[in-house]
Amino acid sequence: MTVLDQVLDRIDADLAASHERLFAFLRIPSISTDPAHAADCRAAAAHLAADLQGIGIAASLSETAGHPVVLGRSGDGDAGRVLFYGHYDVQPVDPLDLWESPPFEPRIVTLPDGRKAIVARGASDDKGQVMTFVEACRAFVAVTGKLPLPVTILIEGEEECGSKSLPAWITQNRAALGASLALVCDTGMWDAATPAITTALRGLLYEEVEITASNRDLHSGLFGGPARNPIRVLTNILGGLHDDDGRITIPGFYDGITDPPADVLAAWRKLDLTPENFLKPVGLSEPAGERGRSVIEQLFSRPAADINGIWGGYTGAGSKTVIPSKAFAKVSFRLVAGQDPDTIRQAFRAFVRARLPSDCSATFEDHTGAPAVAVPWDLPQLAAARRALTDEWGRDALLVGSGASIPIVADFKRLVGMDTLLIGFALDDDRIHSPNEKYDLRSFHKGIRSWARVLAALAA
Amino acid sequence: MTVLDQVLDRIDADLAASHERLFAFLRIPSISTDPAHAADCRAAAAHLAADLQGIGIAASLSETAGHPVVLGRSGDGDAGRVLFYGHYDVQPVDPLDLWESPPFEPRIVTLPDGRKAIVARGASDDKGQVMTFVEACRAFVAVTGKLPLPVTILIEGEEECGSKSLPAWITQNRAALGASLALVCDTGMWDAATPAITTALRGLLYEEVEITASNRDLHSGLFGGPARNPIRVLTNILGGLHDDDGRITIPGFYDGITDPPADVLAAWRKLDLTPENFLKPVGLSEPAGERGRSVIEQLFSRPAADINGIWGGYTGAGSKTVIPSKAFAKVSFRLVAGQDPDTIRQAFRAFVRARLPSDCSATFEDHTGAPAVAVPWDLPQLAAARRALTDEWGRDALLVGSGASIPIVADFKRLVGMDTLLIGFALDDDRIHSPNEKYDLRSFHKGIRSWARVLAALAA
Repeated sequence: MTVLDQVLDRIDADLAASHERLFAFLRIPSISTDPAHAADCRAAAAHLAADLQGIGIAASLSETAGHPVVLGRSGDGDAGRVLFYGHYDVQPVDPLDLWESPPFEPRIVTLPDGRKAIVARGASDDKGQVMTFVEACRAFVAVTGKLPLPVTILIEGEEECGSKSLPAWITQNRAALGASLALVCDTGMWDAATPAITTALRGLLYEEVEITASNRDLHSGLFGGPARNPIRVLTNILGGLHDDDGRITIPGFYDGITDPPADVLAAWRKLDLTPENFLKPVGLSEPAGERGRSVIEQLFSRPAADINGIWGGYTGAGSKTVIPSKAFAKVSFRLVAGQDPDTIRQAFRAFVRARLPSDCSATFEDHTGAPAVAVPWDLPQLAAARRALTDEWGRDALLVGSGASIPIVADFKRLVGMDTLLIGFALDDDRIHSPNEKYDLRSFHKGIRSWARVLAALAA
Repeated sequence: MTVLDQVLDRIDADLAASHERLFAFLRIPSISTDPAHAADCRAAAAHLAADLQGIGIAASLSETAGHPVVLGRSGDGDAGRVLFYGHYDVQPVDPLDLWESPPFEPRIVTLPDGRKAIVARGASDDKGQVMTFVEACRAFVAVTGKLPLPVTILIEGEEECGSKSLPAWITQNRAALGASLALVCDTGMWDAATPAITTALRGLLYEEVEITASNRDLHSGLFGGPARNPIRVLTNILGGLHDDDGRITIPGFYDGITDPPADVLAAWRKLDLTPENFLKPVGLSEPAGERGRSVIEQLFSRPAADINGIWGGYTGAGSKTVIPSKAFAKVSFRLVAGQDPDTIRQAFRAFVRARLPSDCSATFEDHTGAPAVAVPWDLPQLAAARRALTDEWGRDALLVGSGASIPIVADFKRLVGMDTLLIGFALDDDRIHSPNEKYDLRSFHKGIRSWARVLAALAA
């Protein structure tokens, strides 16, 4: 019997106790955004630090400008060290009257389809997911006396209110982290049967543009025709931002982008993320991105441009015959690996300016610029983690992207140079941030076993 | 000495008394929009009716749903009868503290360049202009005992608050009008030396369009790319409403439009309505209408399209990564003779619908539709009036268009089938609707003489 098999057996045997330990953690109402719960946040951090110490992991609270972080270190030296990140804080619980049982009194329920789940605020996001990793560590220590590789554990308390204090803390404590790879358990499975590693997060570039034509609002009867209308200018420019094939027309926009490897694309093609089941629920039917790219490519590996807001002229009830002086839009770009936000920003601004009539001007406001984050497709630890998950779930683990940004992952890359493997066991029906949040017992149990396999694989 | 010469001499000799009569009219604060001045409005109407009766014109007040109209008739039968229209009501006077003298105490001032002018609310708009016609009639009656042709005089009291009651009154009193041509004195000269007849008023078609894509707002990270953005759809459609030559691209939009006669175009080309002096004061420099058409053509004889308002998505401070469900715009068209508003409306809606992605829908709201009004270029009375004005001012009278609509002119055409000659003597610096409104003594004096010549010419 291999060490890993012994660890997995230990996990199975200890599962009831694991439930109890998660329940104790869930009972602490660590709502980070509510100042009335500041002491609860500190209590949750102290509870977790004590639990890690009980396993033999040197852990303590470390102060930040806000709620403290829990920092634990196990093992000697930094060779092969990995950092596990999660958060102990939770979302508020209102509307409280929609909860079927008190949010901080966790209980096990049986769902209509027979699945069993833990119901409580934080059951999935992120206390349950954090404890899958902690329990895997506990089993390793119980069987072998130690973890199979050096591990740093960083659990913050402000993720649900924007992780405001964390970047500064990381900058100050970079040396204490000592890892070259981050593991994050705050994402989901592809579906209840299929594990997934999120390897790419799109970046975001968000610009506001203001077009000025005349120096005051004009009467459209007295001036209509000869007088430049800035809404016409704006719609003309933004209406040309995509060509008829859905491609973004900014020169150089796609420079530097590479396609995922063939095996990843092949795996994606087998998935059921079709227009029918992705777009139909929101009332759409026709993929609006680049023609010839599947919905999943458009989301995971291709950039996108959206006009998030537009305004100008008269927008009240009825009619007003005005040619406004100004028109405005908020335009954002979802970026992928290979695209530099500053370069795209300048290219967008040049695109607008090149299309301005000579008597109009444009000013820009920079709202956000964050690059995409992507794990290199050929990273050895990625392949190792993927095999480990595949072994546990009996189904090929998918490498997926996420259309949205997760700032901490970009911070790890930017501040510490770490790549991140996002491995999580949440399901789409977990109701995170909503009443009656739950975490499937199967996610919890096989999540612990998954981490045991991943740690073993990374240590190999 | 001709009769006309005698009439003109009489006008010159009676000018001081003409001033006094205008002053008496100006002293009545007939602010139509303010219910506190309802009795003043009726007093102004009664004053004017009494004055007409004094000339020998049968005149009386006729009730409407609002303030009464003054209706006067002179001459027998309706052969060659003309209708003179003006209004006795005036704009409010606030801000009162910006007036250099009380607005209803008319006085004669000398302007910095030596011109003399009457200052009072209504001096130009429209009591002064109305009295140019009344005084011409008075002089004719004084010299010949009668007017040279049958005349109906219709002076309303609600022009400054939208002429709400007039269309219904006209419909009910169509037979009493009895005229086939209307004369209106409520417009301006081309410049202080050049008389003008406004022969064309653009029509207006005003539509609101609502584009719907998804059935709810979406997160642009999770959906950006595959999900259709209705602002992108709207900007794409409206951004294509004009081609690179400034022409409107709606199929059939220009059908039925004819150019003015060569002599009118030639006269326009001599005018100084250049980009430099028309656009520069409002901060523009490049005519935005059809390439190859002068500024004056773009304003007077060509249709235009304007987006008067646009909105959708997030328009507050900062950024929000939303793909909205809906986007909106208000779009209006200035129409010229030959264009039918309903036809253009349907063509615009078809243009939008033809460019909609299959999973988007568009709904439309009809705000306004009014056809252009144009006096036929070959109307004999137009040529006669033009010659009369040219004789008085010693400079060719211009035939001009107006980019804006004047509803009463459209109503005369629609309800009574009358064409209208808009002949006025206001100047750009008359400050109508503003404090210290004035009317040049020269406008008043030569305005009276102009109407005497026009009446004589129309009677010939």
